[in-house]
Formats: sequence, structure tokens, C-alpha cells
Amino acid sequence: MKLLTFKQHNHIYWGVKKDEKIYYSEQLISYFPTLLSVIENINYMNLEQDLNRYVNLDEVQLLPPYIPNKNIMCIGKNYREHAMEMTKNDPKSVPEHPVIFTKSPSTVVGHGDMIESHSNVTEQIDYEGELAVIIGKRGRNIKRQEALDYIFGYTILNDVTARDLQKRHQQFYRGKSLDTFAPMGPFVVTRDDISDVQSLSVKTYVNDELRQDGNTTDMIFPVDQLVEALSQGMTLEPGDIIATGTPSGVGKGFNPPKFLRSGDRVRIEVEGIGELENKVD
Amino acid sequence: MKLLTFKQHNHIYWGVKKDEKIYYSEQLISYFPTLLSVIENINYMNLEQDLNRYVNLDEVQLLPPYIPNKNIMCIGKNYREHAMEMTKNDPKSVPEHPVIFTKSPSTVVGHGDMIESHSNVTEQIDYEGELAVIIGKRGRNIKRQEALDYIFGYTILNDVTARDLQKRHQQFYRGKSLDTFAPMGPFVVTRDDISDVQSLSVKTYVNDELRQDGNTTDMIFPVDQLVEALSQGMTLEPGDIIATGTPSGVGKGFNPPKFLRSGDRVRIEVEGIGELENKVD
Repeated sequence: MKLLTFKQHNHIYWGVKKDEKIYYSEQLISYFPTLLSVIENINYMNLEQDLNRYVNLDEVQLLPPYIPNKNIMCIGKNYREHAMEMTKNDPKSVPEHPVIFTKSPSTVVGHGDMIESHSNVTEQIDYEGELAVIIGKRGRNIKRQEALDYIFGYTILNDVTARDLQKRHQQFYRGKSLDTFAPMGPFVVTRDDISDVQSLSVKTYVNDELRQDGNTTDMIFPVDQLVEALSQGMTLEPGDIIATGTPSGVGKGFNPPKFLRSGDRVRIEVEGIGELENKVD
Repeated sequence: MKLLTFKQHNHIYWGVKKDEKIYYSEQLISYFPTLLSVIENINYMNLEQDLNRYVNLDEVQLLPPYIPNKNIMCIGKNYREHAMEMTKNDPKSVPEHPVIFTKSPSTVVGHGDMIESHSNVTEQIDYEGELAVIIGKRGRNIKRQEALDYIFGYTILNDVTARDLQKRHQQFYRGKSLDTFAPMGPFVVTRDDISDVQSLSVKTYVNDELRQDGNTTDMIFPVDQLVEALSQGMTLEPGDIIATGTPSGVGKGFNPPKFLRSGDRVRIEVEGIGELENKVD
């Protein structure tokens, strides 16, 4: 099932995408106004039966799936070749334990929204195409073997980064949390639609030039291990988002670097999840 | 004005502390159920007139002031002597730009609540007594001279840290975000009650032994500069919390280190703000 949030005639709805249509229910939305509330209450809902209206996908404006009520957790250097490209091939840069930082919820924008260039603050905006995991069930100290049971589904996230700020401020939060720096969506694909989350291609195009051509099979810490590690001593809650890291091919990895410029279009494709495209302001 | 959140007869209220009484209004609470909604709407309220009931402070259970809807922002190494104690007196450890990391909202607990020892995850729990700033007005690219206008008030925060996880995972989020690792409150003191935020003593006691004896005058980046720096390209919103860093005297700074043990009591006193005490489980 592919869930999404959209705007029509100035109202905000969530719905389920089938082919080129979105099915929704005004009554269900009155009880569960956001996709986050759907994720929290999915066990009490029967989406197959209750969605009695539909609209064509191309007639609506797509919005971010939802705004999380805590920061997005992101995994740094979770692909070996990306760790190497960021450190001039220093093999010691490949982490032995997951590197975790966060992005503010105020960074979230939707498919088609502008990425602000923030030219008064940064000169080095970079893209990072990523598979993002959405937690569906509250849990702590989750075992790796049971980790997938705690996942609601998956989406796409562009972990946009100001490389100069990331370096200058040491901890990554500052360079990762400028407004509009987390394009997300457009779809949340439920877990049962993805037969093997560790064999999905992840591609990022800038103006139709293929820059990142990775596959989730190359993650250093696969999804189940990330859920296990993050949940040790820290309760994960429905709607929590884990961006699982980016493959090699980011702008900073080129010589000379290929940072984003005003007018650039960034498109991320994750196999089975969809496409997320945004333009730089 | 000192605001707080409390529990009485299984109901949750917010109110204003005067001497040893708490003044509150059930009608106002029906419109503005949380202290966060008060912070967001303070301009439309007249708290001096409208609080028509009271209860004695010692008859209620104090709760955390509120749970923020994004992560708490924390400043690393914002006191020179603390930067030095963490790095065996390396003068290069004193940052030239603010070091910013975050703690999950799920870490927040109140005055008197237990700090979990998480003995399956960490062996090195440490305290960090801090002044925390609460944003009161939405803003971006705020100038230093106007920064204080964007502040609602102040509270106390214990930035509890698992030192082993902090080191092992490189980025600080993981070691800072275990459940119960952000005791906060009990009071939010409005800005007008603090004549000079850069001359407040910050003291931390462990079992009545004075460990941290600092003063906000020693911050490398004072509060107005932090608000300016954080807001460059990133919109600050009412209820956002900035923990402004800790003075020297943390457990890791001693030789041998004095990490927290089960049964320890940690009490933080910030001049003009109050006292925050918690026990380790």
C-alpha cells in the first residue's frame, strides 16, 4: 500500500494511491487527520474497505507525508564507498558503530517543493539520496530478528547538507537542519510491499545526470541492525523516521566538487518506493 | 513569572508559582491545555487577571514543564574550562563556532523523576548542569542585538550523557538520547525576571558534593550569539529549547572519573531559576 498526503481545494487529505488514483475517506480523515495519526492507529483501521472516494493523482498537489514530532534520525557513513569519498579514501573513516545525527522537523518539505539555497549562510549545498524507515510500533531494546515487525514502511528522503557548515560546526546538526533541507516522500510504502529492503537500488540524478547509483545491499549497518542499535535504551515510537545513509556520488565526492546551484533539479529514485524530485531555489 | 506544570488528583495543570502557592485557571487550561500552548499564545493571555484558583506547591506532583515537538538543541563545549577537561587540556578543543547536537524529546523527565541507569547499554553516565533557553517568538536570521526579544524564558536542564556511547558513535546524539536523559524544570522563568542572563551561577551537586561551580558569564558563545547563530537559515519556533552548555566539573573531568552510580542524587541550581533534583535509578 502506498500512502500519501495531498492538498485539494485548500484542504489537506491523506489517501492511498492505486495506479494513478488516490482513494480517501472524509470520515476517516475527521477521526485521523494526519498520516502520522494513521501510522499510530493503523491496527484499528480497515483501509481496504473504508476509502469511498477518489481523485486523480495528477489533479492534486502532493505534500510531505507528515511532519514528525521529533527530529529525523540520520545515519552517517553507512555505505563504505561514501565514507571513503568523504575522507579522501581514509579506510579508518568506515565506522565500527552507527554514526547518528538528526535533522529538525522544520526541514521537511514535499515532492516538488523548492530547496532554499540559503546563499547568506552556505556556499556548499549538497544532495544525499536515501531510503528512510518509518517506525510503526513502540519499542525499546528491540532484537535484530524482530526489528522488521517494528517498521511501518519506507519513504525517500533527500538529506540535503551544507558541507561548509557541517565541517565548521563539528557536529552535523547545524549543516543538516537549514529550512527545506529534508525533501521527503511523496509516498510511504508499507512494509509488506517490499519483499527485501536490503536489495533496493538508490539513484540520484541532478539535471538528469546520474550521480548516485547505489543499492541498499551495500549498507554497512542494514535496516534491522539500525533498529536494534537505535532502540538500545531509547524508545522508538510510531512515526519516528530513520534516514539510512547515502551511497557514494555526493557532490563533495567529485574533484572538483559538484555542489548544487540555483535552478538544479534533484531526483531520487528508490526501487519500489517511488521518485522524489525538488528544484533548488 | 515562574510557570510550571503539575499533577493533582490525576489531572495535569499548568500554573504560575507565587511564593509557595500555584495559581491556575481551569477555564484557561481548557483553551490552552499545555505550557507549550501558553508559550505559543502568551500575547493573547492575561495571566495576572485570569488565574482564579490556587493550590499549595507542596501538595502537588511537579511534572516537566512540557514536552517539546522537536529535539532539544544543545551546545557542546561552551565553557572553556569544560572543553579543556574533556580533552586533557588541549587548547585546540575550544570551538571557534558553536557545536550543536540534539537530544530526543523522549528524554525529557521532570524534577524528582528517576534517571534510568541503562546498565545494559552504558557504564559511564555523567551529569551536565545547564541553563536552557526557551524560544518565545518565531524567527529566522535573527540579529544578535534583537535576540533577547525572541526568548520566552529560561529553565534548568541536566544534559545527562552516556560517555562511552558518546565516544563510540562519534556524533553525540546517541549517547545523549537515552530515555530519561533530559531532566528539565521544574520552572520556566520568564525573560523579564532575569536582569542579566550572562551573570547567573550554575552549580551541580552530586549527593551534596559540589561538582560544578560555574557562571554564565564564562560562556564562549553567550545566549544572544547562540540565538543569532542557530537562526541563520533555520527558523526558530516558540517552545524550541536551547541547552546552553555545561561548565567544568563533569564526572569525566575527574581523575579517576566520577561517573554516576545507582542511588546518586544530582541537584542543579541556576541562580534566579530554581533547583532541579533527580536520583539515579
